[in-house]
Amino acid sequence: MTHEPVMTVEELEAFMERDFPQVHHGGRTNVIEAVRPMGATVRMHYHERHLRPGGTISGPAMMQLADYTMYVALLAQIGPVPLAVTTNLSINFLRKPDQSDMIAECTLLKLGQRLAVGEVALHSDGEEELAAHVVLTYSVPPRD
Amino acid sequence: MTHEPVMTVEELEAFMERDFPQVHHGGRTNVIEAVRPMGATVRMHYHERHLRPGGTISGPAMMQLADYTMYVALLAQIGPVPLAVTTNLSINFLRKPDQSDMIAECTLLKLGQRLAVGEVALHSDGEEELAAHVVLTYSVPPRD
Amino acid sequence: MTHEPVMTVEELEAFMERDFPQVHHGGRTNVIEAVRPMGATVRMHYHERHLRPGGTISGPAMMQLADYTMYVALLAQIGPVPLAVTTNLSINFLRKPDQSDMIAECTLLKLGQRLAVGEVALHSDGEEELAAHVVLTYSVPPRD
Amino acid sequence: MTHEPVMTVEELEAFMERDFPQVHHGGRTNVIEAVRPMGATVRMHYHERHLRPGGTISGPAMMQLADYTMYVALLAQIGPVPLAVTTNLSINFLRKPDQSDMIAECTLLKLGQRLAVGEVALHSDGEEELAAHVVLTYSVPPRD
Repeated sequence: MTHEPVMTVEELEAFMERDFPQVHHGGRTNVIEAVRPMGATVRMHYHERHLRPGGTISGPAMMQLADYTMYVALLAQIGPVPLAVTTNLSINFLRKPDQSDMIAECTLLKLGQRLAVGEVALHSDGEEELAAHVVLTYSVPPRD
Repeated sequence: MTHEPVMTVEELEAFMERDFPQVHHGGRTNVIEAVRPMGATVRMHYHERHLRPGGTISGPAMMQLADYTMYVALLAQIGPVPLAVTTNLSINFLRKPDQSDMIAECTLLKLGQRLAVGEVALHSDGEEELAAHVVLTYSVPPRD
Repeated sequence: MTHEPVMTVEELEAFMERDFPQVHHGGRTNVIEAVRPMGATVRMHYHERHLRPGGTISGPAMMQLADYTMYVALLAQIGPVPLAVTTNLSINFLRKPDQSDMIAECTLLKLGQRLAVGEVALHSDGEEELAAHVVLTYSVPPRD
Repeated sequence: MTHEPVMTVEELEAFMERDFPQVHHGGRTNVIEAVRPMGATVRMHYHERHLRPGGTISGPAMMQLADYTMYVALLAQIGPVPLAVTTNLSINFLRKPDQSDMIAECTLLKLGQRLAVGEVALHSDGEEELAAHVVLTYSVPPRD
């Protein structure tokens, strides 16, 4: 399963634009930085619609970013399959994020015939310690 | 711990208005319907900012609603303590929600000196089956 | 999906005896008390092999009990399908259990074509408050 | 927080022997292989009491191993504190383990004043792919 990604960053951005436009509602903030075998990195630009009072990133914004990054890593590996859906998301909030961009690093732990499981580490740009850690399960359509 | 709530729905709405105004950003949609010993019910009005393509409620909107409902149930029980923070949220997406209001029912499973744990059942208004099920942990400040 | 169970307690005990004998390794302690539409109750008799120092029930013993109870509830609903496997188990430890039998109550939240999700509440016999709360996902084989 | 461990492997084994003897009930199988800043590695020797039919490692045995490894990593970092307790454990079962020793690698993601969060990767000895992935939260006693 640990083969090279079958989609480039450009192809993934184009697919997301068509298939997942709601992510960009209110201004494009998620930018795919890299894909690699069984992994992807996405940057979420600091934007007022992701904030809670005090200027830190809200919980739902972090969950959205984690889910998006897992979806990117999954599609990079299996190709443009629109029927993958999140079945479980478990997030631990570890530290208050900074008032800055947030970086999400996804690693796929399993890519099976029916389920994919991945973890996503979230940290503020320029900060080493994690703001949150997320584990997600996707149900994936049967493939050859 | 299973005593009557110490805050009324009106007091809770007023506290949330002051303490948690970002929830109402873009239009007030979360309405507290009831509080009871170790529990609360919140209605999220159907609103375009909670949608994903096809008109169903997005994952982040459901997580936000679950988190809000747990916070309401917690404050109803312990009073207006602004320092409670979510440390873990685990959500299972069970069925595609309808294009309608969503109802969240929270039950507190534990209200300890340091941690509170609750579950939240989410269903579309008028629909019996659950759209999602959420378990949350809050870190709560020490109390007398 | 919320139909009457298709297996009785006696049929389930017989199936478990054949299919899941390791649960009874070291002495039979799990006893099915009831099955109902989308749910089951199992009693775990107090036994030294489930203990940790101080005489309380160990974490792994509680997890084993929760997993068993979910499996019973699932089989009661779909019949004797040996290929169902646990894919996720998330447990919150809420209170120290008593030195007594432990009761597990499972409710299936979803029984889909590929995944089943259930919650299990664990409490010491005679005690109302929960010792632990568990959410499990099973992968289930395709059915008609 | 990312300082050198304050306990050696030998000190940890001696502490566990005194504080956690039930882990060795039925024969010592968990052996601490290494500790490092914010992490630890434990080997669980293949033993019949950890098996399920077919000779693979049971779910409760994997959970016990993950919990033990997190506890070792935590104590290595904060010293011999017997009051740390597991509050949440979430496990994803990814692949059927081999009939061999199992290796657990724990990384602490957060070590706060009240809560510690860690992840544990479990794989069969000699196998690169994960058999299971676990995220745990411990409640830790206040420290200076």
